Amino acid sequence: MTSFLITGSSRGLGLELVKHLASFPAATIGTIFATARAASPSVDLTQVIKTTNGRVKYVQLDVNDQSSISAAASKVDQLLGPSEGLDVLVNNAGIQLHNDPAPSLMKEDTLDSTLSTNVTGVHRVTSTFLPLLTRGKAKKIVNITSTLGSIGLAKQSGVIYCPSYSISKAALNMLTVQYASELGPKGFTVFAISPGWLQTDLGGSHAHLKPIDGARSVTNIILKSSKAKDNGCFRDIYIEGDSFYTGENPPW
Amino acid sequence: MTSFLITGSSRGLGLELVKHLASFPAATIGTIFATARAASPSVDLTQVIKTTNGRVKYVQLDVNDQSSISAAASKVDQLLGPSEGLDVLVNNAGIQLHNDPAPSLMKEDTLDSTLSTNVTGVHRVTSTFLPLLTRGKAKKIVNITSTLGSIGLAKQSGVIYCPSYSISKAALNMLTVQYASELGPKGFTVFAISPGWLQTDLGGSHAHLKPIDGARSVTNIILKSSKAKDNGCFRDIYIEGDSFYTGENPPW
Ligand SMILES: NC(=O)c1ccc[n+]([C@@H]2O[C@H](COP(=O)([O-])OP(=O)(O)OC[C@H]3O[C@@H](n4cnc5c(N)ncnc54)[C@H](OP(=O)(O)O)[C@@H]3O)[C@@H](O)[C@H]2O)c1
Ligand SMILES: NC(=O)c1ccc[n+]([C@@H]2O[C@H](COP(=O)([O-])OP(=O)(O)OC[C@H]3O[C@@H](n4cnc5c(N)ncnc54)[C@H](OP(=O)(O)O)[C@@H]3O)[C@@H](O)[C@H]2O)c1
Repeated sequence: MTSFLITGSSRGLGLELVKHLASFPAATIGTIFATARAASPSVDLTQVIKTTNGRVKYVQLDVNDQSSISAAASKVDQLLGPSEGLDVLVNNAGIQLHNDPAPSLMKEDTLDSTLSTNVTGVHRVTSTFLPLLTRGKAKKIVNITSTLGSIGLAKQSGVIYCPSYSISKAALNMLTVQYASELGPKGFTVFAISPGWLQTDLGGSHAHLKPIDGARSVTNIILKSSKAKDNGCFRDIYIEGDSFYTGENPPW
Repeated sequence: MTSFLITGSSRGLGLELVKHLASFPAATIGTIFATARAASPSVDLTQVIKTTNGRVKYVQLDVNDQSSISAAASKVDQLLGPSEGLDVLVNNAGIQLHNDPAPSLMKEDTLDSTLSTNVTGVHRVTSTFLPLLTRGKAKKIVNITSTLGSIGLAKQSGVIYCPSYSISKAALNMLTVQYASELGPKGFTVFAISPGWLQTDLGGSHAHLKPIDGARSVTNIILKSSKAKDNGCFRDIYIEGDSFYTGENPPW
């Protein structure tokens, strides 16, 4: 029985991850802490909570607000009780602001706030939940990154899409490897997963895949991951029969 | 006659770059704009300025202060005159704060300020000087990075040294590739160079090399660089007979 905490589960991939995890038998996936910025769950998340017999619990958590993260950790601690820990943390919350037409025209605020949410935010949440994760059995920390954060692919393609976002995800990949180096020896598996290009508010309607396809593939990678194989890795999703999503690790 | 602007030239690598560039004949290297945070040049830089017959010009520039960067660009514009542009910009200024014992213990302020100086700072300077560089002949933008910013090497070694710094240099590498993609088609060469582990305030006294060795090798790479070979690349220094500094490009 593995417990999960997902950040940014009001909508998009985070919401679908919660839904998909809740569809597993309770003997496999235990409590799912669905967290989001708002004081109460979004309409869609409320629907999920209603139909899952108390397995999905809502906890308010803004990755940019340390006091909200600390309060969330206390609440999760209480809900788990003293003998249980948190098994899997999925740092899913992220932003991509679409107002950078070119690197040289990046607004300073866009770059700073993207780095703050997508990099410092993940650090805030991970460091705050570390005591609870240390008490957990699975000891998995999953950072949702993007192939747009691959410096190697960016160099190869020469395509500029969203410079601040790409910079933040490259930085997140290094944050992931740094945490993996620290926590691997303590039994943790810390790794990054690119969930595919998904039809969410962030991905837009022209994206390749439905959010549920991303959620299924990400869940599959998490459940099959092991420290020896995945700690410090950059994983990409696998979609059967798809020549693009082959499951091969992207270059850094 | 190639003109240069170096940020962070009060001391360390930046100071040695200015000194070394000034040792070339004036027919090869023209005006060298030595910039630093303080209103007037450091004692060491003053010495260099005194002995170089007006070829080294001091301009105040704090990479974290947009108004100081804009004022510096106006001053350089004036000093160059309307028919000349700036040829080479070397984004050398950088910080490494030594108060992160481990990734999970990174202070939020350390991470944010390291990202601000080492990443957003380079963006501020580059975007502000772009009109002057566009008027220049060489059109080279060099970002001083570090092999500590290589995600591939960090994953391989598992060594944690200075997490905030490593994260900032990985982000800087992506910034470099993004600018290279934008500006390559406009005739620019934008690339990153790791200058070696140098005995400076930042590198410490146990470092491998004297700052002048780094400055010599970095200068050599810049002068021999070409758009076809180097745009969007991560270069490392070459030291003759040294098995560590082989000049091979590090992995991203
Ligand atoms: N969609 C894609 O194609 C794609 C591709 C690669 C990677 N990704 C990554 O996948 C993750 C999820 O993306 P998505 O497509 O599901 O995006 P989305 O539909 O825009 O949803 C983003 C989620 O993050 C939350 N969030 C934003 N800022 C937050 C904060 N400060 N604190 C807490 N939560 C915050 C949002 O909550 P609110 O409702 O409160 O705003 C929302 O739940 C992101 O890390 C993204 O970079 C997505
Ligand atoms: N030393 C090494 O082993 C090594 C290895 C790899 C990469 N690097 C990189 O090489 C570059 C130079 O490092 P270094 O070893 O020469 O460091 P250093 O001796 O500490 O000198 C740093 C320089 O950056 C300047 N600086 C800091 N913040 C600034 C700001 N906000 N605006 C303008 N200038 C600022 C400093 O000016 P003040 O005097 O005003 O503080 C100083 O001139 C850095 O980018 C560093 O990351 C160094």
